[in-house]
Amino acid sequence: SSDLWGNAIRVGIFGESHGSEIGVVLDGLPAGVAIDLDFISAEMLRRAPGHDLLATQRKEDDVPKILSGVKDGYTTGTPLACTIENTNKRSQDYDSFLRPGHADWTARIKYGKFADVAGGGHFSGRITAPLVFAGAVAKLILAEKGIRVFARIRSVGTVTDDMDVMGVLLDFETIQNLIKISQKGFPASEQFEKAFQEEIKQAMASSDSVGGTIEVIAAGALAGLGEPFFGSLESVLASLYFSIPAVKGVEFGKGFALSAMRGSASNDPLYVNAGKIYSKTNQCGGVLGGISNGMPIVARVAIKPTASIHLPQETVDGDPPENVTAVIRGRHDPCIVPRAVPVVEACTALGLLDLFLMNAGRK
Amino acid sequence: SSDLWGNAIRVGIFGESHGSEIGVVLDGLPAGVAIDLDFISAEMLRRAPGHDLLATQRKEDDVPKILSGVKDGYTTGTPLACTIENTNKRSQDYDSFLRPGHADWTARIKYGKFADVAGGGHFSGRITAPLVFAGAVAKLILAEKGIRVFARIRSVGTVTDDMDVMGVLLDFETIQNLIKISQKGFPASEQFEKAFQEEIKQAMASSDSVGGTIEVIAAGALAGLGEPFFGSLESVLASLYFSIPAVKGVEFGKGFALSAMRGSASNDPLYVNAGKIYSKTNQCGGVLGGISNGMPIVARVAIKPTASIHLPQETVDGDPPENVTAVIRGRHDPCIVPRAVPVVEACTALGLLDLFLMNAGRK
Amino acid sequence: SSDLWGNAIRVGIFGESHGSEIGVVLDGLPAGVAIDLDFISAEMLRRAPGHDLLATQRKEDDVPKILSGVKDGYTTGTPLACTIENTNKRSQDYDSFLRPGHADWTARIKYGKFADVAGGGHFSGRITAPLVFAGAVAKLILAEKGIRVFARIRSVGTVTDDMDVMGVLLDFETIQNLIKISQKGFPASEQFEKAFQEEIKQAMASSDSVGGTIEVIAAGALAGLGEPFFGSLESVLASLYFSIPAVKGVEFGKGFALSAMRGSASNDPLYVNAGKIYSKTNQCGGVLGGISNGMPIVARVAIKPTASIHLPQETVDGDPPENVTAVIRGRHDPCIVPRAVPVVEACTALGLLDLFLMNAGRK
Amino acid sequence: SSDLWGNAIRVGIFGESHGSEIGVVLDGLPAGVAIDLDFISAEMLRRAPGHDLLATQRKEDDVPKILSGVKDGYTTGTPLACTIENTNKRSQDYDSFLRPGHADWTARIKYGKFADVAGGGHFSGRITAPLVFAGAVAKLILAEKGIRVFARIRSVGTVTDDMDVMGVLLDFETIQNLIKISQKGFPASEQFEKAFQEEIKQAMASSDSVGGTIEVIAAGALAGLGEPFFGSLESVLASLYFSIPAVKGVEFGKGFALSAMRGSASNDPLYVNAGKIYSKTNQCGGVLGGISNGMPIVARVAIKPTASIHLPQETVDGDPPENVTAVIRGRHDPCIVPRAVPVVEACTALGLLDLFLMNAGRK
Repeated sequence: SSDLWGNAIRVGIFGESHGSEIGVVLDGLPAGVAIDLDFISAEMLRRAPGHDLLATQRKEDDVPKILSGVKDGYTTGTPLACTIENTNKRSQDYDSFLRPGHADWTARIKYGKFADVAGGGHFSGRITAPLVFAGAVAKLILAEKGIRVFARIRSVGTVTDDMDVMGVLLDFETIQNLIKISQKGFPASEQFEKAFQEEIKQAMASSDSVGGTIEVIAAGALAGLGEPFFGSLESVLASLYFSIPAVKGVEFGKGFALSAMRGSASNDPLYVNAGKIYSKTNQCGGVLGGISNGMPIVARVAIKPTASIHLPQETVDGDPPENVTAVIRGRHDPCIVPRAVPVVEACTALGLLDLFLMNAGRK
Repeated sequence: SSDLWGNAIRVGIFGESHGSEIGVVLDGLPAGVAIDLDFISAEMLRRAPGHDLLATQRKEDDVPKILSGVKDGYTTGTPLACTIENTNKRSQDYDSFLRPGHADWTARIKYGKFADVAGGGHFSGRITAPLVFAGAVAKLILAEKGIRVFARIRSVGTVTDDMDVMGVLLDFETIQNLIKISQKGFPASEQFEKAFQEEIKQAMASSDSVGGTIEVIAAGALAGLGEPFFGSLESVLASLYFSIPAVKGVEFGKGFALSAMRGSASNDPLYVNAGKIYSKTNQCGGVLGGISNGMPIVARVAIKPTASIHLPQETVDGDPPENVTAVIRGRHDPCIVPRAVPVVEACTALGLLDLFLMNAGRK
Repeated sequence: SSDLWGNAIRVGIFGESHGSEIGVVLDGLPAGVAIDLDFISAEMLRRAPGHDLLATQRKEDDVPKILSGVKDGYTTGTPLACTIENTNKRSQDYDSFLRPGHADWTARIKYGKFADVAGGGHFSGRITAPLVFAGAVAKLILAEKGIRVFARIRSVGTVTDDMDVMGVLLDFETIQNLIKISQKGFPASEQFEKAFQEEIKQAMASSDSVGGTIEVIAAGALAGLGEPFFGSLESVLASLYFSIPAVKGVEFGKGFALSAMRGSASNDPLYVNAGKIYSKTNQCGGVLGGISNGMPIVARVAIKPTASIHLPQETVDGDPPENVTAVIRGRHDPCIVPRAVPVVEACTALGLLDLFLMNAGRK
Repeated sequence: SSDLWGNAIRVGIFGESHGSEIGVVLDGLPAGVAIDLDFISAEMLRRAPGHDLLATQRKEDDVPKILSGVKDGYTTGTPLACTIENTNKRSQDYDSFLRPGHADWTARIKYGKFADVAGGGHFSGRITAPLVFAGAVAKLILAEKGIRVFARIRSVGTVTDDMDVMGVLLDFETIQNLIKISQKGFPASEQFEKAFQEEIKQAMASSDSVGGTIEVIAAGALAGLGEPFFGSLESVLASLYFSIPAVKGVEFGKGFALSAMRGSASNDPLYVNAGKIYSKTNQCGGVLGGISNGMPIVARVAIKPTASIHLPQETVDGDPPENVTAVIRGRHDPCIVPRAVPVVEACTALGLLDLFLMNAGRK
């Protein structure tokens, strides 16, 4: 089954880019969670287009409408359903040819002539809006347990912000700073903001697009989440990250860089402080044997360049298909990395909440 | 729940490194699959230690004993259970301190004094033996459908075999060659075999260990597997890859490298040949929008250096814990990458089989 | 997790009796199913109140609004979401005391002060409307495969229509007649319609309510559905039937009556006709060893009397709770059995569709 | 998937009646549960044949061998696997024709010529031995939480022990008495033991078999288990009960009898005692709206007569099938109801444990 995720909680998303409404159902939430609508709206705004000059001009008012599961501002414990209107759909803008790098091709393989790919259909990045809603609810619950989730742009194209968050212990001040960066309109460090935006502008100026990477951190009362093997914390989070359209790589801790190291350098040394165990470095990203060790959880995702570019591309059109050179119409983000930051956080929050609730049951 | 995976099929693994038997239960298999025991034994031998001078000397006779679900050489359609005896367990060799980079620490966080971590316990790489058994069964079923899965070492330490399997279409000869490489005792290309082994020998000579990466390919009748969002092919396979101990990164197609590219370079151009659609390159690794497009599926996993090294390490011991400098006893692989190759293939085969069966139901 | 069901398909229902909208998400449907809205509306009308003098006067216009997953009248293969407006909610009518026989008490145990039980909240029979929508979609798919599902009232109070559908083979004419009965406004045989209605009128005249039983049959290309043990056809259907509020008993074939029989009488004899195997009687209800044998599947569910009656009842009110004698306000069905008939059919159709799709994958 | 059940815990059973070993894997157990092997063995003995003159003479030594998940007498929190040797298999005794009332027919429909039905194969009642093992473990965990599960024979053939356990509150003494009855070699009340045995002897004397019903009760700290709709306590337990071979009916509380009542008689009146809410009667069997109210949970299952009888039966044999009249060889229980008592308890314990753990996570 496709668009349902979870074990203790269940997240089901639905909708198409050009339908009347898209939405999400959250099942398995505890009763009594205060639903802070201002926080949720702020989260959705972080993902929404049009609030940044570099992003697509297709304006969307992502106002979540809660249909069930909330009473007097608190969750009731029964399914929480939410819909979001598509106020600005323009399916007449969409093209008939298969857009390279898109799901147009595979949707037709899978669903045949019944595939609905106008504007991306259900494959559209637009469907991450309900995911951000669900993530915002998960964050509210995690915050009650002292857990914070925050991400930032780590690279755009060939420019990388190599801030060291794993070779050292993260102190309170650093965490506060990282949280602040995550909430900026353009969620990158001051030092790299300009350089990242320059990469995007150059891609845009060439009618092209550019990819990037996002680093997400979860800090707080996290020890003991995840299971050996199939239920590993990495398995759970990766299954969510790879649900995000355009994500093609996921690593935990130093990830791929660890593969080039010696064990004497990659192992994080342990020590005791006031009776409690810590590691001196956190190159494993807070996870050993699939289970969190209480250090910050650090993951990175790689996002490919926006598939929609305004340059001519070789592709196919028609039935039977013929070779064509075609140019995609409409406006598109030259780089979706900034808007993907809250989506990566949402996935992280949902994954950790599910693990948290599963773990709580076993105590 | 921890050690169960799957949807159409279910794979449940159990056991500890020092127990009497470890095993696996495979549920949901079709009836009538010919269980080729020679093939399965050959697969298990690929993972087994001791058949390669560079691998640990702990000899294990991984003879699978099928308890149920097979009659007269064919699956019956009811659960297939298999156990493997631990013939060479020596739990007295194991250390009391927390071994850095191991699950010793997190197992104690999660299970308290009931944690069983002697020799790794359930967290041991030894538990991948039943996984390879399950993968071998999955391969037998996929082979009937014309699907082959084959992996090779792509890097050890800082040495990388950058064979181009995605910038071009893979022809029949190349695929046959890659299959042959995958089945070598040391599954690397002729050109890089020596250099990889040299990296491992040097690490071993320094009482150290080293990591690496594995590239896995699935070729054949694969189009239309996977679902949008949560059931994406990448999500399904990544959840399995991250189940393998020591895997810290996963990418599909060019993965992280895509994040540094422009869309004009990363999009794979499409064309028609004899009425069928293909892409000229395969940088997306055969997956678009979470669904396979029929091109080979290409994934890479990053494996951290073996955590067990024979150098003194800072860690903690005792209850209450105290800081110590300790050296791990026993023999350990200086590099598990060669033995992880069949495990990565097994996970790939299990993931694709599950997607194949789910997809078949929806036709 | 509570309100999600299924394996190959997933059905998630949400909403409260007094919310703005209730709904359902159907995931895992095949693409290309023709969505016959007239059929679906007719199905929903069968469950809707107010079309029968004996049912509650609370009028509801159950017009399903499809938000996603359907294009040009066919399913797209991605999640199908549907909402239904609550046009006639009057939560001010509801009572503060715990209504005996209702979920008011248990909802407060489970969710504490956050429980939402006005008008039944999420526990309301109203939430079976989206279930009937989902069942109607399932019926459309099953009909393409030659499977029909039809139910009728078997008893109301102490009056039982003991039509023999299991001691004999059902011929085409009998099946057509049973289908016709199922679609009547009051879905009972001509012979028993009056007597059943008289039971209901008498209960109503005493400000009381009355229960009953429903017999549901599925006929068609059904052989081989279900699995041994946990996935038995009976387990799958029973888990759905017991989801319906007020259902307190489920039996397959002759069910409880079998427990009083000898094996020589309860075993259905087998015979061959034109090379195909049949049973002479169908007292097992078409299921042996958890798997359907191709004979009609027959199940019965027991429905308790409507908990809401207009007589004074002993119960508790307030916080801290105090003993009170109270009378429930508002109008309520004196017998929900007639309206439950399409709900029982919907559950049957959803269960069989799920088993059918799971089975198809294993061929 | 067939033989896996659960959500917070997962129970997977495997094996065939004539294989070398049968077994079970329990995943998701908490760490630190004391595994009382004496208790477990006693439980298994209750189900084992041959300890009662009325039961089949096929002797089985059901000695569970724990392969993993237990260390020094306590669960480790990782998968607990257990196998049981089949010491007394005699597959040469088994017949070639389709035995009426057995899964022989449906197994061939589902699995074709690969079906393994010698002695029942995986469909055999023998496979309930691992289920009783799993249930014993669940009971140990529930006992720590103050929950007891106990069943007894309620009827055999036409003789019914109509003890009133729902029209009144169960006091401590009654519960102790019911527990004592459940643990008898023939788990029936003193008053009815003789009459039940007489029914069985008469059936046996006629080379026939007879069915019966079992009533199971769970008492203790049970309030708040279950969910509305699909996750209802009744749905969860019924899915397990209908997994037991030969079970054809399940009811909760007064079940089918409720359907013949008026609401004024079926509603259980509520009252307050020392600030706590109770019901005066327990006709709903401790469940309202799918959630337990803290009163004892009461369920009944109907078990059809043993399908294997020693009278000539009409059936089919051969390929292509031909009509034959055949007599089943070997010894068989004339009534499996006594031995099914611990199986029904095991299913109840597993279901409640799963709900308990899921619920704990949501607090």
